[in-house]
Amino acid sequence: MRQAGRYMAEYRAIRAKASLLEICHRPDLACEVTLQPVQHIGVDAAIIFADLLLPFEPLGLGLSFSAGEGPVIARPIRTAEQVARLPAVDAERDLGYVLEAIRLSVRELRGKVPLIGFAGAPFTLASYAIEGGSTRNFVETKRLMYGDPETWHALMDRLAAIVGRYLAAQARAGAEALQLFDSWVGSLSPQDYRRYVQPHSAKAIALAGAAGTPVIHFGTGTSTFLDAMAEAGGDVVGVDWRIPLDQGWRAFPDRGIQGNLDPCALFAPIPELTRQVNDIVDRAAGKPGHIFNLGHGILPDTDPDRVRAVVEMVHERGA
Amino acid sequence: MRQAGRYMAEYRAIRAKASLLEICHRPDLACEVTLQPVQHIGVDAAIIFADLLLPFEPLGLGLSFSAGEGPVIARPIRTAEQVARLPAVDAERDLGYVLEAIRLSVRELRGKVPLIGFAGAPFTLASYAIEGGSTRNFVETKRLMYGDPETWHALMDRLAAIVGRYLAAQARAGAEALQLFDSWVGSLSPQDYRRYVQPHSAKAIALAGAAGTPVIHFGTGTSTFLDAMAEAGGDVVGVDWRIPLDQGWRAFPDRGIQGNLDPCALFAPIPELTRQVNDIVDRAAGKPGHIFNLGHGILPDTDPDRVRAVVEMVHERGA
Repeated sequence: MRQAGRYMAEYRAIRAKASLLEICHRPDLACEVTLQPVQHIGVDAAIIFADLLLPFEPLGLGLSFSAGEGPVIARPIRTAEQVARLPAVDAERDLGYVLEAIRLSVRELRGKVPLIGFAGAPFTLASYAIEGGSTRNFVETKRLMYGDPETWHALMDRLAAIVGRYLAAQARAGAEALQLFDSWVGSLSPQDYRRYVQPHSAKAIALAGAAGTPVIHFGTGTSTFLDAMAEAGGDVVGVDWRIPLDQGWRAFPDRGIQGNLDPCALFAPIPELTRQVNDIVDRAAGKPGHIFNLGHGILPDTDPDRVRAVVEMVHERGA
Repeated sequence: MRQAGRYMAEYRAIRAKASLLEICHRPDLACEVTLQPVQHIGVDAAIIFADLLLPFEPLGLGLSFSAGEGPVIARPIRTAEQVARLPAVDAERDLGYVLEAIRLSVRELRGKVPLIGFAGAPFTLASYAIEGGSTRNFVETKRLMYGDPETWHALMDRLAAIVGRYLAAQARAGAEALQLFDSWVGSLSPQDYRRYVQPHSAKAIALAGAAGTPVIHFGTGTSTFLDAMAEAGGDVVGVDWRIPLDQGWRAFPDRGIQGNLDPCALFAPIPELTRQVNDIVDRAAGKPGHIFNLGHGILPDTDPDRVRAVVEMVHERGA
């Protein structure tokens, strides 16, 4: 959940010298940043430092980040012609710097903790590609989805193939688990999820996990279609804090679950934070396969001491 | 659902001459704007034109709207002292211009269609008051909620009393139904909703409906705590598009339901729009008490012809 980031002084020190994209492009820096939360927070896994939108560079969409670190896509995709003209993306050739950062990180971690690779899910990537950046209402995304479903499915199919193969390449480079991130899929109705998204997420996950590497299938705001998400695949399904952990689990009792602390709980005093952590661990009691995590990305102003405190609480409860 | 607004040329014509707050403050203009959707769209009810945050003016929070119409609160509330110093609000004295706009509107409508009054729910108002404007992550809101629950409950209690009495005053002025708007309550976990919000929404609804006027209790992103929302009260519970209408209804089978078309569906071609409208009407079949509506506010670039088309579809299906 963006383990490395602005909330860590060690990360900000590197960001003072290099932009977000420069860190991503330089395997030595990406590796250094990837290791920071393991060294300073004590988490049980590292997640490769990268950006969800890196595949937009070889796709020629003109990716940059504004001062507030919000993404800007210079050439959004909204027509059949634009989808047809998208160049082929080969993860080894076009995103090799991420794979190299994974190889470096795995070597540095020396098996102490596993490394998780990740990629954006087709819907979340499509929403950025169509809107040209962040959005609150997803109007252009849904306008294309409803108005030109053929182009929508063509775009989603391309994105599914790209991220599926990119994730598989991350596994070959040494990632020991893979996470498909569908941050914004909760903007959809369950009916629309099944019709417009599920087949493409299923394709991405099938490609990603073909060689047997476990896949975590994560989204936020997904309470009403967790069954459909689980059908699309994933050895573990990740949920946000909007559904009690045990209740979410009922939709996929045979899988593992990841979650689901509200990132805002890290701003709570220790007693309230402890109460919330314990509640989550209690709801996982007696069931196999729980990855304790936040329900979405860690927030920029988070106090690293609180994150360390949560890691210790979970370790104590797990012991 | 913000029936009057930027999507209507008739509204923009008035906005060219007066600011949003000026329209709210002038009963003649507020009445004119309230009637526009009845005249030009053919909806079955009018909703008084007002802003959720008007109670912030007598509370002395310094309400204004930036160019993009986003609210700015000059003096946010974050401490026990600030809550204790909040002045008393009397709806008749301090928000009398809204009540006068209601009286004018009811007179103009001559019983042809009913008028709905509304107010922001305690949580949604608290989030604006604490953050100082719109927010994506509700960090300051939850920081106060978790970190100083006594101040949180004091603020929520004050807001509940104000909006409950304000709604009751709207009913006395002639509003034939009342809507409590909890736009952002879906940022909470079900556990937090019950602990930090439900008692205050219950108080607001009890005050609002004391004289028997029906109350619509609306929120978005509430799929996992609809039961708790219904317990807090409301003759009708309003849901967004993230839960199928019939599935949402199971949480409160004895009540009416309002919803739940995705506002983005109004950007879809007529066949897809028709399919979605029919799906909603079908899910309400054989059950009493369905108010067809959007699942959240109508979006600024919506084509009024599409809105008219939906009204006609619903009328045809209802006939």
